[in-house]
Amino acid sequence: MTRARDLGIPLAGTPGPLNAITDVPGLTVGFATVIKGDSARTGVTVIHPRGQFNHAPVFAGTFAFNGNGEMTGAAWVEEGGLLEGPIGLTNTHSVGIVRDTIIHWQAAQDSFFQKWSCPVVAETADGWLNDMNGFHVEPEHVLSALDSAKGGSLPEGNIGGGTGMICYEFKGGTGTASCKLPEKLGGWTVGALVQANFGRRHQLTIAGVPVGQHLTEDAPFTNGENPLAEQGSLIVVLATDAPLLPHQLKRIARRATLGMARTGSLGGNGSGDIFLAFSTANSSAGRGDENGLATLQALSNDKIDPLFYASVYATEEAILNAMVSAETMTGKDGITVKALPHEDVMDLLKRYGRG
Amino acid sequence: MTRARDLGIPLAGTPGPLNAITDVPGLTVGFATVIKGDSARTGVTVIHPRGQFNHAPVFAGTFAFNGNGEMTGAAWVEEGGLLEGPIGLTNTHSVGIVRDTIIHWQAAQDSFFQKWSCPVVAETADGWLNDMNGFHVEPEHVLSALDSAKGGSLPEGNIGGGTGMICYEFKGGTGTASCKLPEKLGGWTVGALVQANFGRRHQLTIAGVPVGQHLTEDAPFTNGENPLAEQGSLIVVLATDAPLLPHQLKRIARRATLGMARTGSLGGNGSGDIFLAFSTANSSAGRGDENGLATLQALSNDKIDPLFYASVYATEEAILNAMVSAETMTGKDGITVKALPHEDVMDLLKRYGRG
Amino acid sequence: MTRARDLGIPLAGTPGPLNAITDVPGLTVGFATVIKGDSARTGVTVIHPRGQFNHAPVFAGTFAFNGNGEMTGAAWVEEGGLLEGPIGLTNTHSVGIVRDTIIHWQAAQDSFFQKWSCPVVAETADGWLNDMNGFHVEPEHVLSALDSAKGGSLPEGNIGGGTGMICYEFKGGTGTASCKLPEKLGGWTVGALVQANFGRRHQLTIAGVPVGQHLTEDAPFTNGENPLAEQGSLIVVLATDAPLLPHQLKRIARRATLGMARTGSLGGNGSGDIFLAFSTANSSAGRGDENGLATLQALSNDKIDPLFYASVYATEEAILNAMVSAETMTGKDGITVKALPHEDVMDLLKRYGRG
Amino acid sequence: MTRARDLGIPLAGTPGPLNAITDVPGLTVGFATVIKGDSARTGVTVIHPRGQFNHAPVFAGTFAFNGNGEMTGAAWVEEGGLLEGPIGLTNTHSVGIVRDTIIHWQAAQDSFFQKWSCPVVAETADGWLNDMNGFHVEPEHVLSALDSAKGGSLPEGNIGGGTGMICYEFKGGTGTASCKLPEKLGGWTVGALVQANFGRRHQLTIAGVPVGQHLTEDAPFTNGENPLAEQGSLIVVLATDAPLLPHQLKRIARRATLGMARTGSLGGNGSGDIFLAFSTANSSAGRGDENGLATLQALSNDKIDPLFYASVYATEEAILNAMVSAETMTGKDGITVKALPHEDVMDLLKRYGRG
Repeated sequence: MTRARDLGIPLAGTPGPLNAITDVPGLTVGFATVIKGDSARTGVTVIHPRGQFNHAPVFAGTFAFNGNGEMTGAAWVEEGGLLEGPIGLTNTHSVGIVRDTIIHWQAAQDSFFQKWSCPVVAETADGWLNDMNGFHVEPEHVLSALDSAKGGSLPEGNIGGGTGMICYEFKGGTGTASCKLPEKLGGWTVGALVQANFGRRHQLTIAGVPVGQHLTEDAPFTNGENPLAEQGSLIVVLATDAPLLPHQLKRIARRATLGMARTGSLGGNGSGDIFLAFSTANSSAGRGDENGLATLQALSNDKIDPLFYASVYATEEAILNAMVSAETMTGKDGITVKALPHEDVMDLLKRYGRG
Repeated sequence: MTRARDLGIPLAGTPGPLNAITDVPGLTVGFATVIKGDSARTGVTVIHPRGQFNHAPVFAGTFAFNGNGEMTGAAWVEEGGLLEGPIGLTNTHSVGIVRDTIIHWQAAQDSFFQKWSCPVVAETADGWLNDMNGFHVEPEHVLSALDSAKGGSLPEGNIGGGTGMICYEFKGGTGTASCKLPEKLGGWTVGALVQANFGRRHQLTIAGVPVGQHLTEDAPFTNGENPLAEQGSLIVVLATDAPLLPHQLKRIARRATLGMARTGSLGGNGSGDIFLAFSTANSSAGRGDENGLATLQALSNDKIDPLFYASVYATEEAILNAMVSAETMTGKDGITVKALPHEDVMDLLKRYGRG
Repeated sequence: MTRARDLGIPLAGTPGPLNAITDVPGLTVGFATVIKGDSARTGVTVIHPRGQFNHAPVFAGTFAFNGNGEMTGAAWVEEGGLLEGPIGLTNTHSVGIVRDTIIHWQAAQDSFFQKWSCPVVAETADGWLNDMNGFHVEPEHVLSALDSAKGGSLPEGNIGGGTGMICYEFKGGTGTASCKLPEKLGGWTVGALVQANFGRRHQLTIAGVPVGQHLTEDAPFTNGENPLAEQGSLIVVLATDAPLLPHQLKRIARRATLGMARTGSLGGNGSGDIFLAFSTANSSAGRGDENGLATLQALSNDKIDPLFYASVYATEEAILNAMVSAETMTGKDGITVKALPHEDVMDLLKRYGRG
Repeated sequence: MTRARDLGIPLAGTPGPLNAITDVPGLTVGFATVIKGDSARTGVTVIHPRGQFNHAPVFAGTFAFNGNGEMTGAAWVEEGGLLEGPIGLTNTHSVGIVRDTIIHWQAAQDSFFQKWSCPVVAETADGWLNDMNGFHVEPEHVLSALDSAKGGSLPEGNIGGGTGMICYEFKGGTGTASCKLPEKLGGWTVGALVQANFGRRHQLTIAGVPVGQHLTEDAPFTNGENPLAEQGSLIVVLATDAPLLPHQLKRIARRATLGMARTGSLGGNGSGDIFLAFSTANSSAGRGDENGLATLQALSNDKIDPLFYASVYATEEAILNAMVSAETMTGKDGITVKALPHEDVMDLLKRYGRG
C-alpha cells in the first residue's frame, strides 16, 4: 500500500511509528468490507477507543462543520462529555443497523456504562458506487468488525465504511495518520481516522498545489450531461492520549475543519462534515469513587497549541492517505471512479516547486 | 379513554377540537404496539408532518434540555432548518431499526428530498417493563405505523413508542394535546405529542399541587431495596401551522422545557429530554423555483409570545394526558407499574383548592 | 429585611447558613446603587468567584434560555471553560462601562489571566423605572462595587444592578439563596444570585399557587391603555464548591430554567434569560504545572442529581427573595411599581393549602 | 494603496466593482483611527448593514471558530436571527465604550428596534503595538466612525479598529474584498471585512505557497528571547444581498473558517476567531404587518454553494488585502512590526509556480 508520504508529498508534523490512529496506545480498529455483485460496495469501520476489552468511557467532544449528515450519539457526547462505547462508521443508510448491532454487542459483553446505550455511529453517502438502498450492511458485518478490531498498521482506501467513497471526484475511502509531539511538548499522539467522501475536483489541493485544476478528466460529478452539486461528506475521528477535558476535545474536533480546508474543500451544502475527538487519558473519566469523585489530569489551554496543530496535520494527511491508497472501483450502474493518479500528482507538485 | 381535562384538572390554554397534535391540519400519526409474552412491552410512534402522502419538508428546530438520549437527524435539522420526512419515536435500543426502516419506506415512496435521508428518530428507555435488549421492534412494525397513520383523535397511554414507559414512577406513555390561539392572535394551533418516561415520584406536580409528595406508594424507583436515580426521558414533538422560521422553531422547542417543569421535573442526569418543533406552514420551505428562490411567510418575534405560551401549555397537558390515559402494566421480570390513581389525584387537587 | 422563608412560603431544599450565594466559601459580592433625582434607578452588582483577592480562574458554563439580552464574555466561557475574573450585573445600556471598568480594575490589580480580558457582564433592562439612556452607571460605581465586595449576609431587592427591576409586574431586583447538600451527598453548596426583571403578572406562581391570577391590580404592563408584551429578563448566577467540569456547569446553568419555571414564567420573547454557573473547586482550574498539567477533581454524572435539584431550588428561592425583599419604587416618568404584598400572598397560599 | 490582486497574487472568485464589502448595495463603513504619541495605535470600525440612515434590522448569524474573544450581541443574533443596528470593531479593551456609544447614537437617532439595544461589537487585541490598557478609544471616535460611514472604496491596513493589528507576525489590520456571482447564479455579492490580527509567521500561506516558512526574519513573536504563543484574533464580517435566512447565515459565517485556513492559520488557542454574516435582502426581516406577518424570500439550500464559495474566497482575499495594505508601524515600547514585503512574497510565489 502506498501512502501520501511514500509518494514524497511534503507534509507537516512528525508521524507516530505507524502513522495511524492506532499509534494512540490501546486503541483498536476493525473493518468489514461488503463487496458483492455489481452494486454492493460498502462496509463498516469500528473504533474501540481503549480496545474492545476495555469498556471504560473516554472524554469526548464533537463538531459539525456541516451537519448535513448523521452522527448518532452526539447529544450525549455534548451533554455528558463521554463516549461510552465503540464508534461505528458506515454508509448513510446503514447507520441504524450498525447502531443497534453495537448495542447488541455491548449487551452481550455486559458493557453498558449506563443502563442503556446510545452509540456513536457516523456516515458518509456511498450511493454512487453502492446501492445504498439495498441495505447491504448486516449485523454479522458489524459484529465481525467489532470483534476483529486490532492495533498495528491499518489498511486504507477501499475498506470498511470507506469502501465505496469518492473524494474530490477521485476514489476516496478510509484513511488514517498520526502526529506525535516531541517529548518536551508532552510526547502525546494525535491520531486521525477519516472516511473521506467529499469535494469537487477543481477544489483538490495537495501541499498547496491546485492539483484538481489540472486533473480535470474523469471527474464523475463535474463532467457528463448533468453535473452535480457536491454530494459527499467527511467524517473525522481524532484520538489522543493527551489529558484533555470534554470542552477541550470539542476544540480539537473543530480543528479538523482546518485539516479538511488544507485539501481544498469549500464546504458545500451537500457535504456532511462531522468530527469527533476523544482522549484515552484519564482512565477514570466519567467514573468516580463511592462518592462519585474522580481525580483527573488536564492540560491547560495555554499548552494546547501543539495538539491543535497535530489535529490539523493528522486530519489533512489522513484524507490524503485515503485518496492515495484507494484503488479505482466500478460499482452500481457500471460507474467507475478512478484512483488518484500518483504520478500525475507528483508531476504537478514538482511543477509547483513542492515535489 | 379519560384525559386530564375530563378529570377536571384545571389547565391553561384553549385546546383545539381534538386536543391533539392532529389539530394541526394535514398531520397524521401512526402507532405500532408490540406486546408479546412476559417481556415485550414496546412499540413505535410515527408522525408525518404533512401526512404520509405529502413529502414536502417542513421548517424545524430542536432543543436538547438534557442530551442523555438520542434524536437522530438532529444535525441536519440544526444545519439545514429542515425536517425532510416522518418522525419516529421508539425505545432506546430500537432507534436504528426504526431509522433504517423509515429510509426503506422513503425509498419505496421515492420521497427522499436530498439524495439520501437522515431521519429523525427519538427514544426513551423502557427497559424496566420491556426487554429492551430483545430488540422487539421489527421492520414490519415500523412500516405498519408509517402506513396506518391518520388524523383525528389519537389513542394515548400504553401505545406505540410509549407502550412501556414510566412517568413520575406511575405508568407513562404517549400523550398529546393542543392549544389553539384566538383568531385575533392568528388562530394558529400548537399541537404536542410526548413520549413521557421521566421523573421521580416526589417531584410530580399537577396544577401546582405537589401530588407526588402524597402519593408515595408503589413508586418503583423510590421504594424497594435499591432506590434508583432518575432513569427516564422525555421526548416532545411540537407541531404548528404558524409560519415560523427554523431559528424560531428552536425557540418553540426550548419552551417545552417549561411545560415539562410545570409537571415537577427537576431535570435529573439520566433523563434525556430532547424536543423537536416544526411548522407545516410554508409549503415551499426548503424548495425554490428554478433559481432556488422561495417566497415565505414569517411571524415577527414580537408577536410570537402566544405561540410560546401555547407550546408550554400543550407540552404540560400532553404529559398529563399520557399519565391519565396510561393503564397499569406488568412487564419484564414481573414488574408492575401502577396507573395514576385518578380519584386520589383529584382529592389532592381539591384539598389544595384546585379541584 | 423579610425573605421568602420568613413569610412561611413552603420551599424545597435546605439552605446554607446565610441562604445566600455567599455560602459558597470565599465568594464575595459587591453592590453600587445609583438612585438620583427622578429617574436614575439603577446600579451594579459584582461577584468575585473566589473573592477579590484571589484571581485564579474558575471552571464555568453558561446557558441562554432566551438570548434576548447580553452576557459579554460568554464566548470564552463556552470555548475555554473558564471564567477569568469578576462578574458584573447591571442595566442593559451600561454593560459596556461595567465591562471596560472591570478590565481597568484588573489591569490595576495586574490580574489578567491571559494577556487580555473579556469580562462576563450581564444585564436586565430597567428602562421603565430608570432612565436607561441616561447612562447613569459610571466607572466609580463599578470600582466601588468591585472593591467593597464581601461575604456574609447580602442585601436584596432594590440594590445594585437590581435596583430598578420589575418582576411579574411587582417590584423585582436582586435576590439570593443557597441550598446545601447533606454530607453524605457531598455536603456541597449551590448558591444563586439573580437579577429578576421578568414575567407577566398572571403568570406569577408561588409554591404552586397561581398568585398572579388573583393579584391583578397595579400591574403596570397588563393594565392601562397599552398593555405591553413581556419586556424583562432574568439573569441567574449559580456558584458551587462541588468539583464540576465546564461541561457539567453548562448543565447546572441549564437547570436554572426549571427554577425560573417554578415561579410561573412562560419564557416570553422579550425576556433575555441567560444563566451562568461556576465552581470554586479545583483551585488549579485552567492552570497547569510547567508542563501545563493540572490535577483536578470531578464528580461523576451519576452523582450529580442532588446538585441539579439544588440549582433548581436555589434559583426559584432567589427569585422569590428578590420579590419579597424589594420595596415599592417610583421612578422615571413618575411610574410607581408596587412591592409584592406579603400578606395578600400568604392569604392566597393558605387558601390553596400551602400556608 | 496596493491590494493583493494588484501584486498579481492569483486569487479565486470574481470580485465586485469595488472588491469591497461596500459592493453590497446600501452598506456603509466608517473608521476612526486613534494614533497618539508613542503608544496609542488603535481605533474603531463601524459597519451599517443598510447604511446609517436605514435602521431596519437584517437577518444574521454568527460562528465562533475559537471563542477566545468577544462579540457582544451574539446571543440575540443567535436567538432572534436579527442584527438590529450597526456593528463595531475595535480593540479588546475598548469593546465596552464602543458598545455603549452605539446605544447612545441609536437613542439619539430614535432607532432602537426593540425597547433596548444589545449592539454587536467585536474585537481583536492590539496590545503589542497599542497601549490597550490606556483605553484610548473615546465616545467621540465612535460617533465619528458612525456618522462618517460611507460606501465606495475603502481604506485598508492600519485604519479604524485594525490600526494596531499584527497578522502572521507582519503588520495586519483592516481588509476587505468581495465576490460577485454570475447573473445565472443569482448575481449576488458577498462582501467581507476583516480585522486581521492572527497567525504565526511559519503558518503564512499565500495562494498555496508556504511564504511564511521562507520569510522568517522580523517575526516579533517567534524570534527574540521569549517566543510567544499565538496571541491574536480574527474577526470576519460577511455581508450579502442574497436572500438567506438566519440559519443559513450561520452557515455562511462558518465558511469564513475555510477562508482563514487558506492563509495558513492553525487555529491557535489564543486566537479569538469569531465571524458574523448578515443579509441585506428582505427589508421586512424581523418586521411584520399589523398581525406580525412578513413576506420573505429565501434561497434553497441546494443553490447555496456559490455563496459558500464566495464567502470563503472573500474572507481569504480580505485577509490578504489587510496584510498587503498595512504599513510598517512602530508603537508601544518601541516595538516595530514590519509590513509584508511585497516583492519577496511575489518572488516566492514565482518560485512556486504561482506568480
